Amino acid sequence: MTTTRRQFLAGAAVAAGTAATSGRALAEGNPENLPPNVAEWSQYLGASVDEAPYGMPSEYEADVVRRSVEWLTASRESSINFTPLYALDGTITPSGVAFERHHGGAPSMNPADYRLMINGLVDKPLLFTLEDLKRFPRVTKTYFLECAANSGMEWRGAQLNGCQYTHGMIHNVEYSGVLLKDILEEAGLKADAKWILPEGADAAGMTRSIPMEKALDDCLVAFTMNGEALRIEQGYPVRLVVPGWEGNMWVKWMRRIEVGDMPWHHREETSKYTDLLANGKARRFTWVMDAKSVITSPSPQAAAMKKGPNVLTGLAWSGNGAIDRVDVSLDGGQNWFHARVQEPRLPKACARFYFDFVWDGKPLLLQSRAIDSTGYVQPTKDELREVRGENSIYHNNGIQTWHVRENGEVENVEVS
Amino acid sequence: MTTTRRQFLAGAAVAAGTAATSGRALAEGNPENLPPNVAEWSQYLGASVDEAPYGMPSEYEADVVRRSVEWLTASRESSINFTPLYALDGTITPSGVAFERHHGGAPSMNPADYRLMINGLVDKPLLFTLEDLKRFPRVTKTYFLECAANSGMEWRGAQLNGCQYTHGMIHNVEYSGVLLKDILEEAGLKADAKWILPEGADAAGMTRSIPMEKALDDCLVAFTMNGEALRIEQGYPVRLVVPGWEGNMWVKWMRRIEVGDMPWHHREETSKYTDLLANGKARRFTWVMDAKSVITSPSPQAAAMKKGPNVLTGLAWSGNGAIDRVDVSLDGGQNWFHARVQEPRLPKACARFYFDFVWDGKPLLLQSRAIDSTGYVQPTKDELREVRGENSIYHNNGIQTWHVRENGEVENVEVS
Repeated sequence: MTTTRRQFLAGAAVAAGTAATSGRALAEGNPENLPPNVAEWSQYLGASVDEAPYGMPSEYEADVVRRSVEWLTASRESSINFTPLYALDGTITPSGVAFERHHGGAPSMNPADYRLMINGLVDKPLLFTLEDLKRFPRVTKTYFLECAANSGMEWRGAQLNGCQYTHGMIHNVEYSGVLLKDILEEAGLKADAKWILPEGADAAGMTRSIPMEKALDDCLVAFTMNGEALRIEQGYPVRLVVPGWEGNMWVKWMRRIEVGDMPWHHREETSKYTDLLANGKARRFTWVMDAKSVITSPSPQAAAMKKGPNVLTGLAWSGNGAIDRVDVSLDGGQNWFHARVQEPRLPKACARFYFDFVWDGKPLLLQSRAIDSTGYVQPTKDELREVRGENSIYHNNGIQTWHVRENGEVENVEVS
Repeated sequence: MTTTRRQFLAGAAVAAGTAATSGRALAEGNPENLPPNVAEWSQYLGASVDEAPYGMPSEYEADVVRRSVEWLTASRESSINFTPLYALDGTITPSGVAFERHHGGAPSMNPADYRLMINGLVDKPLLFTLEDLKRFPRVTKTYFLECAANSGMEWRGAQLNGCQYTHGMIHNVEYSGVLLKDILEEAGLKADAKWILPEGADAAGMTRSIPMEKALDDCLVAFTMNGEALRIEQGYPVRLVVPGWEGNMWVKWMRRIEVGDMPWHHREETSKYTDLLANGKARRFTWVMDAKSVITSPSPQAAAMKKGPNVLTGLAWSGNGAIDRVDVSLDGGQNWFHARVQEPRLPKACARFYFDFVWDGKPLLLQSRAIDSTGYVQPTKDELREVRGENSIYHNNGIQTWHVRENGEVENVEVS
């Protein structure tokens, strides 16, 4: 049932003489096999170059969109929608379908009115316009952003059918911006400056405490994503980028950075974004997103599988480094095969993996597990529960299982 | 006037005490320096997560669009528009503003009706549906696509004011698809199979001859760009990717690949896409796009420069490999400085470079030159003309010059 790539290619060549071939023999009296030489789109002029100064996807891709779950949150402004991972390929998340999470809705502001204030334990409190920020040395970096609650509903077993819902609180985007370090150093850090509190300009005034070591390491003050200005829902015109750490800390519409000597213990780091363990104690400041992966196709929302050559594909990422290896299993974790992980494998960014195999039509239990550059191996959900209990909402990086039925349909299941 | 990065940072720190600082001292009686604590966007709930299943840029970015030049072509369907390079950062070109070039307009087709035929010197002529193609082993790769005519109007001197027009026939996109090699091998190549002729399904039925060596090397049959299905204007649902070679060969809406023993000498490789030299002979089959670069900001369409710290940025690319180095000059090529080229530097893909300097308000002649991994150095326009004369339209990879006036405005000029 399972094969390496070399075996797959050999298998495909053999299969070419059968009904399971990837290509169909031309004509041979079968009208379905005639090429559409006179298709309508070949007979008339198509759209001109003036049609769409800003282009959109084909109407046939209208279902590749962000989706939300009505019952998940009390309001639609303090809510979330999900990236349609099942329909995407490659590593870059298109900005139009990159998931959104707001706590007071997404505010639209004129960038001419934008200001960023630095205050607290600094030598000179400063105020920056967007133009001021663009005068600092700039960098371009690709990073994943994962909500700490991604896969949170999986703590208590398979609940939602589709990786858009189970794993779609992630996107992977190329940012340009300036180093937070450079801005903090322009204000001048006092000796007891140990923490920062970035604050959003949205109605929620989102704040999170970030230790100075991280702030001075790789954090960015970003103004573009995937080449163009940030989208409104991603913090236009300026967001904080906190590579490898939970998305809630990547403050959007960032208007202020306070510098202090201890964490602030605000709402989003006490009542939320902490992990209640079985013994009643809570894990706090669990910022890093550990290595994780998911098979995006086949998956419950993707097209049903068919016998013959198939491509299994998915994403893997780690907040601690680059992806070193991805293993996939077709039998629920009994046997593992190396997937082909695409280059470049950037640290703290999504990697795309593929695994080619010929399906004989028997049921499968598909799994993937990521191994990152530190040697960390993505755990099973049960291994996670053993350590953290079942009270948790956040930081579920357990191995996901998809069950493939004989008819090729796929569903979210849990194996022990 | 010019400095290394280390010197720039030192310079910025000094400047912080003056009017040229990047940050403004807070308050001190100046109401303009008060932060917008009670801005409107902070007082009301913003957009909900249901607002935009497929998101679009902010209304304040409405001018970041593809633009065309009316007089450039006889019809609007057989024409071109340009990527707004001056407004972009990073390396990924957003799909919505990736330039378009069609010869019969962009046809919209239902992917369910899509077929790809392989015929000619093959063992088994084959027909593929889109689903068939997706059963082959898949890869994800980032490549630039540059029209051979990019900067073509510069052969006769500075004519258009703005890098959107002089250099905007390029985009840099992450593709997923299958190796053309695998599809050709499924059909089985006969001993005398030396060339392929990919053919588009658009009204122009675009065709180009491609030598088999390239077809079996790194060409892709691609179905996604930047994570999602190809945009209509980029060949939805399937285009050919010919890494490093001129854009005209990247056949869109690809419906057929004929395999032959010699090139076809079709219109697009005889009357077009050949280079008439001064002696009346024409260069043919000049497929590779040589190393090239352009400063995207400052540039004529970007905001006027201001004194003090500035970031110069641009793109560099080479059809022969990766970008090894980018030099920039502020004085028309007399003195050169190393720019900071961002990682990763992928072969046959755009690289982003930055150069930080403090501007004293005196006129500048900005230039950049790319050096690729083969050691090739981007030539001046005059060096190109010496070899190729001035009849050419295509393959102008000469060094571009922007003149910065004392008032900070920028214009397209030529220096000898």
